[in-house]
Amino acid sequence: MSNTLIEARRELALANRMVANEGVLDAFGHVSMRHPENPNRYFLSRSRAPELVEPDDLIEYDLDSRPIREPGVGQYSERVIHGEIYKARPDVMSVCHHHSPAFMPLLAVGADYVPVFHLGAVGGIRPPFWDQQDEFGDTNMLVVKPEEGASLARAMGDGWMVLMRRHGVTVAGVSVRDCVFRSIYSSRNAEYQVQGMAIGNHVASLSRGETELCGSISTQTTGLMRAWEYWAMRVAKAGGALAAPKAPSRAKPAAKPKAAATKSRIGARSKKSKRR
Amino acid sequence: MSNTLIEARRELALANRMVANEGVLDAFGHVSMRHPENPNRYFLSRSRAPELVEPDDLIEYDLDSRPIREPGVGQYSERVIHGEIYKARPDVMSVCHHHSPAFMPLLAVGADYVPVFHLGAVGGIRPPFWDQQDEFGDTNMLVVKPEEGASLARAMGDGWMVLMRRHGVTVAGVSVRDCVFRSIYSSRNAEYQVQGMAIGNHVASLSRGETELCGSISTQTTGLMRAWEYWAMRVAKAGGALAAPKAPSRAKPAAKPKAAATKSRIGARSKKSKRR
Amino acid sequence: MSNTLIEARRELALANRMVANEGVLDAFGHVSMRHPENPNRYFLSRSRAPELVEPDDLIEYDLDSRPIREPGVGQYSERVIHGEIYKARPDVMSVCHHHSPAFMPLLAVGADYVPVFHLGAVGGIRPPFWDQQDEFGDTNMLVVKPEEGASLARAMGDGWMVLMRRHGVTVAGVSVRDCVFRSIYSSRNAEYQVQGMAIGNHVASLSRGETELCGSISTQTTGLMRAWEYWAMRVAKAGGALAAPKAPSRAKPAAKPKAAATKSRIGARSKKSKRR
Amino acid sequence: MSNTLIEARRELALANRMVANEGVLDAFGHVSMRHPENPNRYFLSRSRAPELVEPDDLIEYDLDSRPIREPGVGQYSERVIHGEIYKARPDVMSVCHHHSPAFMPLLAVGADYVPVFHLGAVGGIRPPFWDQQDEFGDTNMLVVKPEEGASLARAMGDGWMVLMRRHGVTVAGVSVRDCVFRSIYSSRNAEYQVQGMAIGNHVASLSRGETELCGSISTQTTGLMRAWEYWAMRVAKAGGALAAPKAPSRAKPAAKPKAAATKSRIGARSKKSKRR
Repeated sequence: MSNTLIEARRELALANRMVANEGVLDAFGHVSMRHPENPNRYFLSRSRAPELVEPDDLIEYDLDSRPIREPGVGQYSERVIHGEIYKARPDVMSVCHHHSPAFMPLLAVGADYVPVFHLGAVGGIRPPFWDQQDEFGDTNMLVVKPEEGASLARAMGDGWMVLMRRHGVTVAGVSVRDCVFRSIYSSRNAEYQVQGMAIGNHVASLSRGETELCGSISTQTTGLMRAWEYWAMRVAKAGGALAAPKAPSRAKPAAKPKAAATKSRIGARSKKSKRR
Repeated sequence: MSNTLIEARRELALANRMVANEGVLDAFGHVSMRHPENPNRYFLSRSRAPELVEPDDLIEYDLDSRPIREPGVGQYSERVIHGEIYKARPDVMSVCHHHSPAFMPLLAVGADYVPVFHLGAVGGIRPPFWDQQDEFGDTNMLVVKPEEGASLARAMGDGWMVLMRRHGVTVAGVSVRDCVFRSIYSSRNAEYQVQGMAIGNHVASLSRGETELCGSISTQTTGLMRAWEYWAMRVAKAGGALAAPKAPSRAKPAAKPKAAATKSRIGARSKKSKRR
Repeated sequence: MSNTLIEARRELALANRMVANEGVLDAFGHVSMRHPENPNRYFLSRSRAPELVEPDDLIEYDLDSRPIREPGVGQYSERVIHGEIYKARPDVMSVCHHHSPAFMPLLAVGADYVPVFHLGAVGGIRPPFWDQQDEFGDTNMLVVKPEEGASLARAMGDGWMVLMRRHGVTVAGVSVRDCVFRSIYSSRNAEYQVQGMAIGNHVASLSRGETELCGSISTQTTGLMRAWEYWAMRVAKAGGALAAPKAPSRAKPAAKPKAAATKSRIGARSKKSKRR
Repeated sequence: MSNTLIEARRELALANRMVANEGVLDAFGHVSMRHPENPNRYFLSRSRAPELVEPDDLIEYDLDSRPIREPGVGQYSERVIHGEIYKARPDVMSVCHHHSPAFMPLLAVGADYVPVFHLGAVGGIRPPFWDQQDEFGDTNMLVVKPEEGASLARAMGDGWMVLMRRHGVTVAGVSVRDCVFRSIYSSRNAEYQVQGMAIGNHVASLSRGETELCGSISTQTTGLMRAWEYWAMRVAKAGGALAAPKAPSRAKPAAKPKAAATKSRIGARSKKSKRR
């Protein structure tokens, strides 16, 4: 595995923990990334709560959401959400599907999302709604069939967010960090918007021009870096930091996948672990 | 005590801690389970806050809510809620009674619970209300008499949840994990529904078909396991994990029920305790 | 100092920490107790945030709120709230003054408090409002003059709670634990009531009969003990437990009031500290 | 660097952590102070989340918000907010710019802030609104040009708070502690006001006389000291306390600015670090 890929997988595992630690995900929901070296593949954790995801939990999928190797562990049933968006949107490098509490009141009453402050511009103005019922009738509401995922991807269009009635939200980004930033700040905005709606009939929205200007700012490096450092610190304070990376193996890299005790002892000696 | 029973009792103690740690229970409320080997018995903690319950706190009751052995400690006054439901509903293996903050606004205004997202289906559509006042007049609102418990069980009917006006909620499940899942996700749904009602006149509900399909999903193992692992991790992070189980005793198993110091020293040496 | 008094002072310090840890107090507010051996005295902390109060911070006051000994440290300016209530109400053994966030919306709109569930009965039905403006015109809103405290005590009458417009709440109890219980559960009730008011025009209240029956239950020992153990555990988990008590001194008890290092070393050796 | 300055810089770093720890700041927002020895300069952190700010992160600026020395690290883009207020208001010694969740609903609906309880007087009655759109049209909403900062400072006038539509809030104070106190308690008040507005049409406000009397109280030392100790304790409990100060260097003070390991080893031996 290349160092780039090792780093990217660690970043994705941390991204899952971050978004969960910020209250956007709970036992359910997931963040994926397109394979950094092969655009026809993506990575998504095995079936477990995002706050617990380790790099070793990541499964490699093709864009039809079939695992490249038999994973031998449980898989998320809704992975087509990810695969079908990567198929439809070559510019998307990361996807987050969530049931953020902040969005639930909007979904419950079918109210449009609007950016009430500059950081809320990451969700766009009045992003589209999608209703699984429209095309597929009564279901268990899980997006499990390829055609269900494709329908959702079409609804998202060329935007960064789609609201799923009586279910949740799906967010896309040009990188894992961008997707994390959009997922968290659109949730913050939704929370503020809902509280505003509870006390007034007219909630102010950024203008279209402001939204475009603000939205492009958020994908620039300085704000992203500051927020990433902050959320990573919060994950660590909450006791959820990833274990130190394995020391580069000199031989038979796949031989000891679960030697956790050894791994952490080596990690403790490395420069990297001291920095945290 | 059989290993099955020992494990089941640990699970029930953890269930009490979980539901409390997720904010559904506080100093009050309780989770019980039917005896896994004797359907005419059930287990419920002695009178203490659920977040503090240990396996040794569990008292064995018959279905008339009389302790099998003189417990020598304080008992919950509302245990008939549990006993009468086990009597009326052979399919129910676990019961949770709570005053979840999420439900209180619905109870205060008498609004029906509706599932606003798929996981909320665990509470059903418009579950019944019960009012102690109707049948018993002014009381201290505690369900302490067998006939009060039986009345509540009748109100629950063949559903999984009953709302108790000016008091709280009682939830049933086909297993301890199912009951925990229903208690937590119905509370999440109630929270979202209340916030939705604060901003709109019409809160969308799952259709009856969706509710049935979603409700049956939640009792399947994959979602339950993922959520259980997540909530257990959160209990542990919050400093509330159960002490390691006692090493299997070779002789006189019931002889030293309270040797806490010994217990934890043995536990510290075992493989199991290292894994946590 | 008698052992009873030493224990009572520890309980009062812990009570301050508990009520703060449960979100009812923040940097401001305070819990006092009548002297257990002299009804014409009461104890209140020196001026510091309640979550930080130590037994040694307690100052002994007469009922005119004058310190018995020159304290040599800053004092709360609003201590007449306590002194005047002890004067007017011989049955009151403990007083809590707070600005609980849960009550602020009710105070802001002047809405009556009603018990929406059985534990909310501890605040009574529609407890009285008091407005400092009525009798004293524009002030800095602090209750600092004896006549202001006396006016507030009159408003409280023979109840257990009085709401102070544009300010906060004052709660009384027959013991420190009773006062803590009333302060916390009336805040929980206020929170639920406010959320109910946001979604419905009619919030259900316990009947007068139910309120009386429920209110008297809460002062009984079983519920109080269960809640006290729970709140104490939460204070400890949050890192706010009191230091172990000083070993009984054999000579010159008042000689080393600040030898913190010694105190905790002795504490660590004692049986008591191991139990926590 | 004088001891006064060293102390002041530590206080400012802690102030950033406090305001973040109380939920007023997140990854964004910042607290600055005027140079205690040179009124034509001010200090503001390099670009990083306020909860992570160290004394060494502080950059010295002139009132045109140009760094005195090339910082060699990223800078906040909105520093003109601080510089222009210090220019316009010689009495202001500290400025906080934030996007407090508590204020967002007010900003979203354009509702005036009013003090609903005495501590809310720190924000004044109906402080002014400012809309970047009015003077500058569509922007990315960041206050980055000197004329934007000057416009905001004019809007603030001689008050202590200005509300920025679709953006956030800026608060000023006569000292760092005063500014922290105003930022936190105006946020608390906003939260209570919003909840009040959700349940009633008329939210009570302090009278103008009460507001003046209460507002002047909050800048007095006793309340400030009590709150500062409390918030500092909370920062420490959350694991965010600043490292112990460097031991006074005997020679070449600027020589080892980043010797973190050495610094903490020295700190661990000093009396000061033991006290925490």
